This record gives sequence, structure tokens and C-alpha cells, in this order.
Amino acid sequence: MIDRYSRPEMRELWSDRARYEAWLRVELAACEAMEAQGLVPAGTAATIRGKVSIDPRRILEIEARTRHDVIAFLTDLEQQAGDDVRWLHLGLTSSDVLDTSFALQLGQAGELILGATDTLLEVLERRARQHRDLPMIGRTHGIHAEPTSLGLVFAGFFAELRRDRDRLRRALRAVAVGKISGAVRVYGNLPPEVEARALAALGLRPEPCATQVVARDRHAELFGALALTAAGCERIALQVRHWQRTEVGEAREPFGGGQKGSSAMPHKRNPILSENICGLARLVRGYADTALENVPLWHERDISHSSVERVIGPDATTLVHFMLVRLAGLLDGLVVDEARVAENLGRTGGLFFSESVMLALVRKGLHRQRAYELVQRQALAALDRGEDFSELLAADPELGGLLGHEELAACFDMSHHLRHVETIFTRVFDQPEHEEG
Amino acid sequence: MIDRYSRPEMRELWSDRARYEAWLRVELAACEAMEAQGLVPAGTAATIRGKVSIDPRRILEIEARTRHDVIAFLTDLEQQAGDDVRWLHLGLTSSDVLDTSFALQLGQAGELILGATDTLLEVLERRARQHRDLPMIGRTHGIHAEPTSLGLVFAGFFAELRRDRDRLRRALRAVAVGKISGAVRVYGNLPPEVEARALAALGLRPEPCATQVVARDRHAELFGALALTAAGCERIALQVRHWQRTEVGEAREPFGGGQKGSSAMPHKRNPILSENICGLARLVRGYADTALENVPLWHERDISHSSVERVIGPDATTLVHFMLVRLAGLLDGLVVDEARVAENLGRTGGLFFSESVMLALVRKGLHRQRAYELVQRQALAALDRGEDFSELLAADPELGGLLGHEELAACFDMSHHLRHVETIFTRVFDQPEHEEG
Amino acid sequence: MIDRYSRPEMRELWSDRARYEAWLRVELAACEAMEAQGLVPAGTAATIRGKVSIDPRRILEIEARTRHDVIAFLTDLEQQAGDDVRWLHLGLTSSDVLDTSFALQLGQAGELILGATDTLLEVLERRARQHRDLPMIGRTHGIHAEPTSLGLVFAGFFAELRRDRDRLRRALRAVAVGKISGAVRVYGNLPPEVEARALAALGLRPEPCATQVVARDRHAELFGALALTAAGCERIALQVRHWQRTEVGEAREPFGGGQKGSSAMPHKRNPILSENICGLARLVRGYADTALENVPLWHERDISHSSVERVIGPDATTLVHFMLVRLAGLLDGLVVDEARVAENLGRTGGLFFSESVMLALVRKGLHRQRAYELVQRQALAALDRGEDFSELLAADPELGGLLGHEELAACFDMSHHLRHVETIFTRVFDQPEHEEG
Amino acid sequence: MIDRYSRPEMRELWSDRARYEAWLRVELAACEAMEAQGLVPAGTAATIRGKVSIDPRRILEIEARTRHDVIAFLTDLEQQAGDDVRWLHLGLTSSDVLDTSFALQLGQAGELILGATDTLLEVLERRARQHRDLPMIGRTHGIHAEPTSLGLVFAGFFAELRRDRDRLRRALRAVAVGKISGAVRVYGNLPPEVEARALAALGLRPEPCATQVVARDRHAELFGALALTAAGCERIALQVRHWQRTEVGEAREPFGGGQKGSSAMPHKRNPILSENICGLARLVRGYADTALENVPLWHERDISHSSVERVIGPDATTLVHFMLVRLAGLLDGLVVDEARVAENLGRTGGLFFSESVMLALVRKGLHRQRAYELVQRQALAALDRGEDFSELLAADPELGGLLGHEELAACFDMSHHLRHVETIFTRVFDQPEHEEG
Repeated sequence: MIDRYSRPEMRELWSDRARYEAWLRVELAACEAMEAQGLVPAGTAATIRGKVSIDPRRILEIEARTRHDVIAFLTDLEQQAGDDVRWLHLGLTSSDVLDTSFALQLGQAGELILGATDTLLEVLERRARQHRDLPMIGRTHGIHAEPTSLGLVFAGFFAELRRDRDRLRRALRAVAVGKISGAVRVYGNLPPEVEARALAALGLRPEPCATQVVARDRHAELFGALALTAAGCERIALQVRHWQRTEVGEAREPFGGGQKGSSAMPHKRNPILSENICGLARLVRGYADTALENVPLWHERDISHSSVERVIGPDATTLVHFMLVRLAGLLDGLVVDEARVAENLGRTGGLFFSESVMLALVRKGLHRQRAYELVQRQALAALDRGEDFSELLAADPELGGLLGHEELAACFDMSHHLRHVETIFTRVFDQPEHEEG
Repeated sequence: MIDRYSRPEMRELWSDRARYEAWLRVELAACEAMEAQGLVPAGTAATIRGKVSIDPRRILEIEARTRHDVIAFLTDLEQQAGDDVRWLHLGLTSSDVLDTSFALQLGQAGELILGATDTLLEVLERRARQHRDLPMIGRTHGIHAEPTSLGLVFAGFFAELRRDRDRLRRALRAVAVGKISGAVRVYGNLPPEVEARALAALGLRPEPCATQVVARDRHAELFGALALTAAGCERIALQVRHWQRTEVGEAREPFGGGQKGSSAMPHKRNPILSENICGLARLVRGYADTALENVPLWHERDISHSSVERVIGPDATTLVHFMLVRLAGLLDGLVVDEARVAENLGRTGGLFFSESVMLALVRKGLHRQRAYELVQRQALAALDRGEDFSELLAADPELGGLLGHEELAACFDMSHHLRHVETIFTRVFDQPEHEEG
Repeated sequence: MIDRYSRPEMRELWSDRARYEAWLRVELAACEAMEAQGLVPAGTAATIRGKVSIDPRRILEIEARTRHDVIAFLTDLEQQAGDDVRWLHLGLTSSDVLDTSFALQLGQAGELILGATDTLLEVLERRARQHRDLPMIGRTHGIHAEPTSLGLVFAGFFAELRRDRDRLRRALRAVAVGKISGAVRVYGNLPPEVEARALAALGLRPEPCATQVVARDRHAELFGALALTAAGCERIALQVRHWQRTEVGEAREPFGGGQKGSSAMPHKRNPILSENICGLARLVRGYADTALENVPLWHERDISHSSVERVIGPDATTLVHFMLVRLAGLLDGLVVDEARVAENLGRTGGLFFSESVMLALVRKGLHRQRAYELVQRQALAALDRGEDFSELLAADPELGGLLGHEELAACFDMSHHLRHVETIFTRVFDQPEHEEG
Repeated sequence: MIDRYSRPEMRELWSDRARYEAWLRVELAACEAMEAQGLVPAGTAATIRGKVSIDPRRILEIEARTRHDVIAFLTDLEQQAGDDVRWLHLGLTSSDVLDTSFALQLGQAGELILGATDTLLEVLERRARQHRDLPMIGRTHGIHAEPTSLGLVFAGFFAELRRDRDRLRRALRAVAVGKISGAVRVYGNLPPEVEARALAALGLRPEPCATQVVARDRHAELFGALALTAAGCERIALQVRHWQRTEVGEAREPFGGGQKGSSAMPHKRNPILSENICGLARLVRGYADTALENVPLWHERDISHSSVERVIGPDATTLVHFMLVRLAGLLDGLVVDEARVAENLGRTGGLFFSESVMLALVRKGLHRQRAYELVQRQALAALDRGEDFSELLAADPELGGLLGHEELAACFDMSHHLRHVETIFTRVFDQPEHEEG
């Protein structure tokens, strides 16, 4: 886990101590389920729970000798609680504990991530509504296209992030699966009822047909959903970076009082939070790719996935959580420069209404390609010579014969152009079922 | 697209002709929707449809000049159908056509893939039921662990592939989205009603808040689901490769009459279909990773995703379809050598019941670690000196004092060991809601 | 292979016909080497060469039955040239032919790629020298930093591409390796001398210790070098995309006479070539990742790498070649708008000389952090209020006490700032050994 | 960095303290170079060095406020050493320090990795020579092919790892590059001579044409070389996993005294070290892919690469180092079971000499395909009915008419088959120039 890019609550969740605590929860849940089935003396789990505490260093010392982490853990418990501990892990294999507790930890990490996603969704909706009626030039290929509204940009991010949330939620459900079925998928030494009861107590479902382990397509789905969420954050961050460019200047990251942009250039205010998010998205993408290689394990399992998950389990969840929290803060404090937005919009003299003019000509009976060429001629002239587009059009004799002065002016009406923005807002924020319908 | 690894129906679907046909469907659906809104003279679409035909070469020739594919397409239509064509594409931008028709093509490819998945699921279920009661050694780390049943192996593959199918279905639904909203997300030159009507006619939903394009997280989800399906196929293929190893020999790929395994070694019968599937899975993994980079486009869009999708759209769907079909045929014809299965199972003299013995000792009151060491001692002796494990145990004085002859024999009962297989089968094949419950 | 993104010479190189021709070259080279060793009657290879021709369809028909490509190829030769063909492939295994001919094809593809790299290097050097003395604002984080020269930007691209060329050349050398050593690395049925002679005739080196195949780390190195070259092209293309943004406008792609930028917006001129290159780079990155998975084959080999290479061998080389050619053309025709370059440079009123001022203050005895804060105060004021930076500085009483009017003016001297550009040019273009020294 | 998979010397190298120490080295080297140029009072660097010490916590506290790491570092120095510190960082930008010190750290990590590679090469050569004359069945597709020697397997790994070493060495040289050229590649505020002198003192070369940063293709090359080395380790580890399979049993990992293979099954001895190495290789592959995305930074740089490198810089080098050390220990202690090697070799009754027989028939005048079919017929009969291959051949009337008894026996001569092994050894171990010639 990367300290620099982790929040305390996530760091705690992936600590050694938290992992061993999760193991203990699983062992005791299985023990209680066996008690209920009469396979273990009643009260055993409660007795053990009362006697033991977790000390990661002690367990790691034992592991250095046994080279097996779960055996080291059990040995430590035995040393603390004595005889009763022999009732633990009865008919279980290590993976019963490891996979089930990994599901618990991923579930907790998932809760943090979903919470951070909700916060970001709130910020996006607030910014969308705030800037709903601010016309801004839409850009395709980095080139001015036609006007859109700044609020719509946020609404689009909102819609994507809500899809990311759905994918995360589904993927978290896919990994909310444990197994307590013994060494090789057959419940050779304990009945399925124990698993059912223990997992229910832990809030998990049983793997319907495990090998020695829970199937790894589940985890690969989760890491894929994390990578998609990271890519969604990257898309937003990339937008901020473009907005903050010196020549664009339409919005910029909040810049703290004591903050310094550059060790060499005192005048710099750089979009470093956004750039950081873009970099982190690359990492999460790499983890998702790695997770896919974990799916095809040998026979009933090999353990090659384990080292991978020890790294990417904490790292991918921690980074995505960090990105979401950072992005929410960034967008909450984003400084929009409305004057620059307007200035940029006006920069091309209404050139972006070229389509309206072309369509008006088509409606007057021109072939599309003819109309296109007519308008393109004046548009490129306006671009190259810096002249006013609507004046050039008005002066064009061929066009003048087709469109009257008022008809031409109507092509340049911004509020007409943006008349459907509210419809889109309704769709995004008030009809979420629209997406899934 | 890779001819060698494509089926004819998929190759046809991704041909130039099929792409232009899809464009035409979209343009005409939009035109008809405009007719219904009174924006275009009634009957225009029908008239055009009657006059035009698709010839890819003609369009590509025009594109060589205009360097814009949709404009070339429209120009070709205009040359065929004259005046009426000016009513096409009215208020649309190229991406309205491209993204909507891409959704149509992906949907068709998805149908083929889901169909192939269903066939593979059928084969897996049949093989699972056929071999339900055949004990086979379960292997973890490639090492004999405890017995499982061959049918369970197939049941496990079935359960994973059904999850893959669910993910594919959801992802196909996520990309069943078009847009007919003009250049920059605001329906500047046509009303949302046209989009709603046209997409409904095409079986698609509208993108609730598009940019110039449909959001690319949708496609990345699909390529991720394809990669997961490919990884599921790889897991099965890897199992076949292990089974077919000379020393294991438990099952092998069907081997045709005239087939030759090696140009140098006439005695070879190699699992080449399975190896092929493993290789193809790597490719699809790569495509999924690439698709994630398409998500963060600039502003209202840039076109960097386009070249990527021209390649991975056809390639990923074609390869996954090919893998599924190939794998279904392979498993249908898989030759199981039951004698070798039994021989391998017997190879360790029942060593795999070591856990049963250990647990019996624990139930007699031994500490787990003590019982473990006692059994491990005889197990390693059996392994290293090739002696019979149960005899070694019977001769162990310490163990003899704890377990009677019959109690020891009971630890070696295969049918007891596999008594819950039917329960798992019920769970996998008769309670699919179990998974999603 | 992707027709749309391939040049004819590369398409031809990877055709079925070309592949079979390469196989024939290898078989005949091996045969001639055996003739020289007295293992095969003299003149056999020449006789066969005179009798046979390649028809891919014929071979593919035979393969449909034998399901083995090399056996199909040999069978076709036998049907054409009869008896003598039994002297071919004597002691060889299929991989001797496949790997050796793959090396030949990669070598040819590599020649094309190196050639295209050289052309691009020439264009980069020409543009570098042409714009050597054009001051342009340097941007870090997308924010104006300090002035650089446009020529230096090209010089930097040149230096990176030359490193890419070195890596490609080395990697091409690493794959210029064949093997004619039979089934399992031991020359069981033919002597090493045959391999040495045959490979020398083909311009290849022998794999010093093959398995059944040439080791795949060699190919992974090549695909990695291709991905790096693609990333180098992407960096340049990304620069063009930024330059061409409406608000920046410092340079733009050439735009053909009949070209159309948008089907909806006649005023658009988009950097589509550059965007295309950025997309293609993602694909090549994916291929490099895939190639790494081909390295750990089983034992003496499995054939999982084969399907991967059938795809990425042609696709990766074809795309990189296409990118290089496209980029060279694009940069050759790149339209630089010197007026906009100057305008943008002037946009911040010399704010970029803030470092010079700060350092001047440090030299006067101020602590760095104190100087930084003093300059940052006026810089942010200039930014926020749009006032002139040098005037604000001149009016600052604290600063006035430290720097005289002339000393302050000297901080704003552009030619002083760029005085070392020529040194860098010499280093890049005239001292290539500098890099490798 | 992942504690579990890191060696102490590598952990130390990537500690916060070590990073700040490297920064200090760079600042002082630059300062001394300026002293030599007369730009800074002589003795300044020495004075500062005598006054300051590194305390990471103190610096991180300052950074929490400034949000700029290098400024925090300089502020801390200023607080310790007062006035003189204003002479540090004069004309430098943060990246001058960060990139140059990153090069120092990568260089140190590289030394450790090269050292571990050398140790592994030694072990591989020793095992190769030790088992040079042990015949072992060669396997292609997991199926018995023809005999090879166990020593050759190690020799092949040696040859690949030596190529990995070459690539690492070259890539380490490519990143042994610093820059001290100021904000935007032009040496605006300090002369190139300072950089040349400072870097020479640090053992680095200058970036010939930097942006604000050292070009990232250099680092991507390094991460690619690390991924290739990891893949080479994976190939070896995969071999061990196959050898250790219960049914193969030809070699196994060392197994410690107190070690336990399974918490459930006392009889297990699993190849967990090898499986671990295979998993770690996946991670490193992911990092290499991520590094490629860092190449195309914006303009003179953006900072998105920084977060990526903070993670993969330590993680990739640490994991590869760990893998190499672990693999060397594993192979050093690898237990080869020569009896099993011989038993497996004998398992197919000499079937693997089928090629020799076929070639003998071809030399007698048979068409290759005819000979192939004749031999394949008996080979498949031997396989399917478990009969002796050489006896079946001897009893074949058609074959009997072509090959006498002794001629047939000569086809089954193992020492003849392996007669060229020594030649290969000489090539691998005594003629390294063979590869590069």
C-alpha cells in the first residue's frame, strides 16, 4: 500500500492486524456453526474469543519457521488459548479462512469506496445544477465545435460515475462470497450446513461450486470495475487539466494559501491534483490487467494468485478511494472563471453556428454537400482572415438569395440552441431508470 | 479481423458492406423519425431505400478524397438517389451514425457470442452429469490433494461460465445505446423526440447525457466482460492441457483421422486446440486493457478511440466467439480415460485421506498441531519410501492407542468423502438464483 | 492485419503467399546445407526450386484435413515435385521452419520500420533547424512556464526517436535468430553444421540453446521496442493536438483541398491524423503486454504463443510502420502560425521571467523562500488582475530597494534566456555519441 | 513497497530517508559545480553538508502545508543551515533534483538486481553442468517428445537470463541520466557546464535535450527489461512447478524441516516458491504496461508520471530483486529425483525415437509422408494398446522389408541422440560472443 496515496481508514483496513482479526472472525463463525450442528462442544467459540488477542509480530515470527501463514496463526491461538483451539479449523483448509476473510476485507473497502463515490456524485450534481445555464463552447478534437452548457459537462460525468457505481456494487456483490468447504470442493470433512450458517453470520454467500478457492473471475470483475471507476475519474481530471491550461483558463483547481506551484517559477499554479489522478488511473488499469491473469489457476487451485492479491487488493482499492476523495474535494473547490468561459465562446464570432446555417440552406432546397461547401468557404475565410463569420455570410451573394436577414439571424440564437438542456437534466437526475429501462 | 480465428457469420458481420448497411439503417431510422415529427416530407426514407445500394469500393474511393468516412458515404448516396438525400443526416453529426451503428453491430456480435456461450454451457452440463460419480484426484499446486469428482470439475466451469454470460449480457445491454443528438450533446438542430423514436425502432436506448459520442466506459465494460469470458475459456483449456500431459493422461482432445501431431514425431497427439485457446485469451486481455484507455477522451470527444475500436471491436468479439465454439467442440469430443483416472487416484495409496485421520485424532482429544505432526510423519514416510500409508498408520504405536482398526478404516471411505457432490450439483444446476440471491 | 492502417509494402510482406515463400526459402537453405554436408544428393534443392510454385489456397485446403500447417505445406510440395521432396525437412521439426521464417519476415518488417524511422528523423531534424530561433512559451502542467524555442521541441523528439531507433535495431538483431536443430534442442537427427550453414545463408544467427523453438524473450523485446516507438510517436502527436487547439493555435496539421472536418460543422479543421496516431499507440502497447505472456512456455515449448504471434506479428509491425509514415507526412506539412506563437508568448506579460527576478534577488542576499514569496506575490497579482508583471515589480518598494531599474530589465532578456540553444543542438545532432558515451 | 516481498537492502534503498539523502547529494553536487564556475562562494556546499541532517518526518510536515515536496525539503534545510542555503537550487527546478536523484536510486537498485542476476546465473550454470549428461524426456505441448538432457534445460535458462541481464544493463545505462538545466530545457539561469560537472561527479550523463524532465522512454525501457527478467524467472518457476507435479515428480523445491504444506493435508509438499514467482511476474508485467503510458507527457512535461513512478519505481525493482534471490535459493536447493527422471523417460518404450525410424525409412527411399504414416500407425498402436514400440516396428512386414534388425536398433541409441549436447554447452558457456556476434 502506498502511504502517500492512502486515507487512514483504508490503511487501517488493510493492516496486518485487521487481516488477522478477519481470520479470527471466520474461524469463530465456522466454530459456532459447528456448535449449532453439534460437531463441536457448545460455547467453544465464545471461550476462545475471550482468551485470545491478535499480535501480528508474534504470528509473523511463527510463520518464519512454518512458512505457512494460517498454520502460524492457529499455532499462535493454540499458545494463547490451549486445548479448545483444537476445535477450530476442523475440516477447514487454509483457503476457507483466507478467501472468506478476503471477501470481508474487500467488502469493507467497497463500503468506503461506494461512500466516496456518493460524495463525488453529490458534488457533481451540485456543480451541474449550479452551471446548468452557463453556455460554454463545446470542443471536439480540442477544436471549438458548438456551444454546450457547463452544467451538462458535469451532468455527463455524473451519469458515467453512476454507471461506475453500479458496476462497483455488482462486482462487490460478486466477491461477497466465501467458502468453508474443505480442501477440494467436496465438503469431505464438514457438512455444507456449517458453511451456510457461518457465511450467513458473516454476511456472505457460499461459492456454489468452489475448487479449493473461490473462483477468481469474481475478483477480476472487481478490479475491472475499479479500473473503470479510475478511468471515469481520469476523464474528469483530464477535463480540469484542459480547462486550467493558460490559454483556456475556464476553471482551475483550488490553490491553498501557502501552496507553491513550482520551486523555480513563483508564478505557477498547476493542476497537480488532476495530474496526480490521471497517473493513478494508469496504475489501477495495470492492476486490472494483472487480475485477469489470476483467473486460470491450475486444477483445484495453485497459489500464484496469492502474491498478486496481497499487492493489488490493498493497492487498487486504496488508490481508487483516494482518487474519489481527492476528486470530490477538487471539484468542490473548483474555481470557474465565467468571464473566460464567455470570452472563449465569443472567440470565433459565432462560427459554431455554421451547422444551423447549413441546415437552413438544406431546408431551402440545397443539396447537403452544396450547402456544406458554401458554408465551409465562408467559415474557413473567417478563420483564416479573422473576419466576422455572420457578416461574411450576409455578404455572400449566393447565400443571400436563399436566406433572408432574419432567417440568417435566427441561426445564431444561443437560447434556441440550448433549449433542450433541461430535458437532459431531467433524464440524468430524475429518471435514473432511464438508463436501465 | 483474423481470418484463421474467425467463423463465417462473425466475419460477415464485420465486413465493410455490413458496416455501411448499418449506417444506412441508422440514417433511414432517423429520417423516418423526422418524418413522424413533420420535419421531413413523408415517404422520404422509403424512397431513398428503394433507390440505393451499398458498394463499399465506391465509398472508399470517395473517402480517399474527402478523408471523412461519413461524408463519403453520404456523397455516394446523393450520387445514387439525388435530391431526396439532402433530407438525410439533418441535424446529425457523424458520431450519431457511427456510434449508433456500432451499437447495432456489437449487439449482433453479442447475440452470436451469447449463443456460443449457451452451447458451451450445455456441453459443460452434459459432461458434468456424465462424470458426476467418477472419483478423480483433486490437485492443488499440481500436487495430489484429496479426491473430488470429475463431474464437479465441469460443474465448476459451468458456474463460472454462467457468471461470464451474465456479465456479457449486462455489458451488451450497457452498449445497446445510441445517440442522435447532434454535434455537442444539446440537440441543437433536432429535437430529442427524433432520437427516442429512431433508437426505439433500432432496439436501442438513448445515451442520457452524451458528449459528441456515446460514453466509452460502456465499451470498456464490454471488452472487460469479453476478456473475462476468454479467461474462463482459458481456465478450461488449461485444465485439458494438464489432463492430456503424458504422465497424467486422464483426458485428451479429440484427434481427427487424418490429423498429424508433429512434422517430426509421428507419435505425437498434442492438445493444440486448448493451447490455441490459451494464446487467444492473452490477446483478448490485451484488448480489454487498451479499451480502458479510450474512456478519458478530451472535452466533448476526440477521435483517438476510433482507430482502437476499428481493430478491437471486430477482433475481440470474433476471437471470443471462435474460442467458445472451439471449446464446445473440444469438450464435446473430449476423450476421458477412466482407467487412468482411477490409476492416478490410487497412486498415493490413500495418502489423501490424511486429513480424515488427523481430524479423527483431534476428535479423540489431540491438539491439532500434534495430530498434524503425527500424521505428517507417516505421510512423508509413505511418500519418500513408497510404502502404504494406511499400513504405516496402523503400525504407528501412538496412533494405534487412539484409533481402533475400524475407526482408521472409516477414514478411508471414498463414498463418504464424496457424499455431498449431489448437493453441489443441485446448487449449480437447479438453483441458479443461489448465486444471485 | 488492418487494411485501413497498413501500407501496401507491409501488407504484401505479411501475406499468406509471402509466408509460404519464406518457408520454402528455409527448407531449401537447409537442404542445400545438407547437400554441402553430403547428407542429401547434390542439386536436390535446385531441382525442387525449379519445379514448385506457391499457391496459398492449395495449401490451406490440405491443412483443413491434416490440421497441421507445415505438413500441409510439405504435402503440397510433394504433390508438385514428387520424389525429391523427401529430402526436405530431414531431421527438422516444424518450428525449425516456422521460427526461422518468422525471423526472416520480422527482419523484413524491421527494415521497413527502420526506413520509416529514418524519414521521420530527417523531418524532425529539418523542422528543428528551421525553427531553432523561434521563441515559444514552454508549458509545464499545461501552464505557461518559461520560454523555450520551437526548434528545441523538435530536437527533443528527434533525440527520443533516435533512442527508439536504437532499441528497434537491437531488438531486431535479437530476433534475427533461427533454429534448425530438430524436435528437442539436441540436433538428434542432423548436425549443428547444417544449421550454421543454412542460417548464415539466410542472414541469421543460430539460437545458442533452443528448446523446440527460439526463445520468446527475443520477440517480447521487439514488441516492447515497437510499443516504445509508438509511444514516442504518440508524444509527438499529442503535442500537435495541443498546438492545434483553438485557443492555442500555434501549429496545425496540413488540411487537404477536398478534405472535410466534420459532417455537421463546416468550420472544423481537426487534428485527426494525430488523434489517430494516439489511438494506434494504445493498440501497440496492448500487443507488447500480450507478448510478455508468451515468454514462459511449458517445458520444451507449448504452442500457445503461436496464435498470439499470428495476430500481433503483422499487426504491431504494420501499425508502427503506418504511424511513422503518417507522422512524417504530418510533420512535413505541419503549418506553424508564428504570429500565434508570438502572441501566446506575450500573453502573460513576461511573467515567465519570474525565476530570473527571484534569482537576482537571491544573488542580492535574500533567502530563497523570501525571494520566492516576494515574486509570487506580484506574479499572482499580475495573473489575477491582468496587470503588467514588470511594472508591478518595479512598483514594489521592497524589491525596488534591492534591484535597480536596469538590473530588473536584464531579467527580462529573451536572447540571454535562449543563449544555450545552439549548444543543445550541437549535442543532439552533432554528438550522437554523447548519449551513448 | 511490499514488505513481504522485499529484501532489507532494497527496502532501505527506497526509504524516505534514502530519497531525501539522494536529493541532498544532487543539490550539493550542483552547488559544488557552481562553486567551480564561480557562481557560488567556494566552500558553500561543504558548509551546508556539515550543518544539516535528514529527518523525513520534519520535511513531510512542511510539505503538508506547501504541497510541494522539493520546496518543503529546501525549507527544512534553510531552517537547519540558514543563510547559506540560499545558494542551493540556484537556477534549478524541482525536476532537476527529482529526476537526477531518481536516476541515482534506480542505479543503486539496478546494482542489487544485477548482483542477484549474477548469483542466479552461477546457480544455473552449476546445475547445468551437474546434470549435463542426465537424459530426460523433452516435452512439447506437455507431451513426451524426444529425449533431451536435464543440463540443457538449465543451460537454456542460463542463456535467456544472460540476455535479460544484457537488457537490464543497457536499460540501467539508459536511465543513468540526470538533468540540471532549469525549468524549460534552455539553461536559462545556469550554464550547461554546471550540469556537466555535477552529473559527472554523481556518475550520470546529462539528458542531451531535456524538457523540464528527463524523457520517460528511458524509464519505460527499464520497466520493460524488468518485466522481461520477471518473465524469464517465471519460465523457470513454471518448469519447477511442472517437474514437481505428483505424476511427474522429477524435481522438487527444497522443503524445510518445520515447514507445513497445507493446514488441512499433512501429506502435501507444494511448489509454493515457484508459484509465488509466477504471481509476482504478473505484477511486474502490469508495471511495464503502466510505464509505457508515462512516455507521452504534455508539452515540456506534466506531472502525471510522478505518482506512477512513486509506486512502480520501488515496487518493480523490489519484486524483481526478490524473485531473483528467491529463485537462486530455490534452484540451489532443488531436489532432482534421478530415478523418476529415468522412469518417466522409459514410460513410452522408446516411442520418442519414432522420428529416427521415419528418417531411416526416408533415407531408404520412402516418401516422407509414407514413412510418417507407417511409423505413426505403430506409434499410435503402441500408445493405445500399451505395447512395445520397437517390437511392433520389428513385426511390421512393410518396415521389415526396408530396415534390417541392426538398422532399426541403431535408431534407438540414446548416446547418439545426445551426441551434440557438449557442443551446445560450449556455445552457451564459453562463447557468449556467439549470441552477439
